[in-house]
Amino acid sequence: MSLSETSIIDVFRRHFAGERSGLVLGIGDDAAVTSLPAGRQLVTATDSLVEGTHFLPGAAAASVGHRVLAVNLSDLAAMGAEAHWATLSLSIPNADGEWVGQFAKAFAQLADEFGVMLVGGDTVRGPLSATVTLMGSVPTGQFVTRNGACAGDDIYLSGAAGYAAAGRAVLSGKTQFDNMQSEEQQSRLRTYCQRFEYPLPRVAFGVALRTVATAMIDVSDGVHIDLSHLLTASNIGAHATVPELGLLATDFDNDTARELFFCGGEDYELCFCAPAESAPEVLRLAAEHAVPVTRIGKAVAGSGLSWNQDGRPVAPAGSAFEHFQD
Amino acid sequence: MSLSETSIIDVFRRHFAGERSGLVLGIGDDAAVTSLPAGRQLVTATDSLVEGTHFLPGAAAASVGHRVLAVNLSDLAAMGAEAHWATLSLSIPNADGEWVGQFAKAFAQLADEFGVMLVGGDTVRGPLSATVTLMGSVPTGQFVTRNGACAGDDIYLSGAAGYAAAGRAVLSGKTQFDNMQSEEQQSRLRTYCQRFEYPLPRVAFGVALRTVATAMIDVSDGVHIDLSHLLTASNIGAHATVPELGLLATDFDNDTARELFFCGGEDYELCFCAPAESAPEVLRLAAEHAVPVTRIGKAVAGSGLSWNQDGRPVAPAGSAFEHFQD
Repeated sequence: MSLSETSIIDVFRRHFAGERSGLVLGIGDDAAVTSLPAGRQLVTATDSLVEGTHFLPGAAAASVGHRVLAVNLSDLAAMGAEAHWATLSLSIPNADGEWVGQFAKAFAQLADEFGVMLVGGDTVRGPLSATVTLMGSVPTGQFVTRNGACAGDDIYLSGAAGYAAAGRAVLSGKTQFDNMQSEEQQSRLRTYCQRFEYPLPRVAFGVALRTVATAMIDVSDGVHIDLSHLLTASNIGAHATVPELGLLATDFDNDTARELFFCGGEDYELCFCAPAESAPEVLRLAAEHAVPVTRIGKAVAGSGLSWNQDGRPVAPAGSAFEHFQD
Repeated sequence: MSLSETSIIDVFRRHFAGERSGLVLGIGDDAAVTSLPAGRQLVTATDSLVEGTHFLPGAAAASVGHRVLAVNLSDLAAMGAEAHWATLSLSIPNADGEWVGQFAKAFAQLADEFGVMLVGGDTVRGPLSATVTLMGSVPTGQFVTRNGACAGDDIYLSGAAGYAAAGRAVLSGKTQFDNMQSEEQQSRLRTYCQRFEYPLPRVAFGVALRTVATAMIDVSDGVHIDLSHLLTASNIGAHATVPELGLLATDFDNDTARELFFCGGEDYELCFCAPAESAPEVLRLAAEHAVPVTRIGKAVAGSGLSWNQDGRPVAPAGSAFEHFQD
């Protein structure tokens, strides 16, 4: 089924027909109008997914629709911000009704789960890509930046890192997975793929952390690179320990598993710092939000990020990363 | 010169290094933070330009950088909104430093002219395209929609429509321009191209009109289609007159000139309605903002949009439009 631009807009409009707090004028005019409650600041992120760069040609439309919103939700989570309104620009080579329907359904499901309203956008003919701008808010002054960490702060990581990159490798048909045929192995491969295709950003936990985190970033480019960004912005260094690598330790040799952790990226977990005395509060919030959290290191005066694993110094080689990248 | 993603971001950051009212945290963290003054509502538009669809392969980078912001400024103008903050997602096949530099310079020049701050974005490898989300504001409740026009309202159009489509045709090398060799003809062709490549949105005039306009839309898809959208949204009809067609009447036969006016699009002029008794105020605002304005018709009860030219009924044939489209 081929759709006109008007029909494509209608597909999205049907998914977002309800009322939503703060929405004054939604899809259908030259621009959207929304109201921010008094005492709050606007927090805005933009991210694009392009076929061939961020997802494989032929990737499931539902995965693309889910991820393009999830990556933006994760950016807001890393600021400690609640998400409110999104715009979507969708570029598609031909108006394939089934593709658009699956994309819109997955986008709307995730939006609904996080209280996000689609308020506008653009539908254009072009190579397959999607761009979302997500607007949210924080009580004035309560956003969490990358640059507030201090020497002595503990460094934490939510969830597991490296799984999404393993999933990306599985989906691109890398031969090293050809021997993983047992039911258990297949189940683990599906877990990796799920993490890549349908990541769940840590929004509620990010919002909760704004009372305790001194600095925060989301792990989109890999733990080593993103933690390095945070440390540079905060003008400090850190000593960190590679945590247990979970499923990765079963399916890969140690060097590859560690590289996936260091450099894999696209996990959309939160990496954050908090004063040592706040450790009980961090663990309480983690338990309250049912988010696994690992203390992976400590910020120190100076610069640089040094890692150890099982007491031995280790460093990202970039090899597994290169290996898995196309 | 080839640029890394970090260098590309730095190119934009240099252009937007200053302070700006309402900017709390700009480029460089997971998201931007901005403050909207009390008593104002947020107005948001998103538009994309894709190579091969919205601009010709090989189009000047400066034109693409200018237009992707201009089209969004025009959307905000049509709401009567002041523009404040933009995000930019830029997809480029290779990091060509000169291309990015020219794009950024033109984008920043137009942003500066309209008081817009670039607060964030994304730079990705992919087919050439750019998406801007532009955020602005209006005093609470004072935005102008498409749906407020009443029977009896006058219908106005700013500037001249059809020139941009003529410019697009010139730039795509249509053969009908081969005989236009005189200096005067060449000068007119440059005027058309300028209107297509570097449109100047009517932002200040749009803001001024919010005290008097009952409905407003920007002419991006052509006068006939966009005015029809406004009438449908307002649940009324209209009788309208094709105005003097200016330069188009010199360079094209009457049917072609009229089709360019009806269906050309991409002029980014404002089409708006106002009560008959407000005519002196509309003309006063037009003079104050040095914007040429023509009263082109009258809203009537019912539905449908009928046109006349020199007393004869005429209708869009879509032929010139098709003729000029690739």
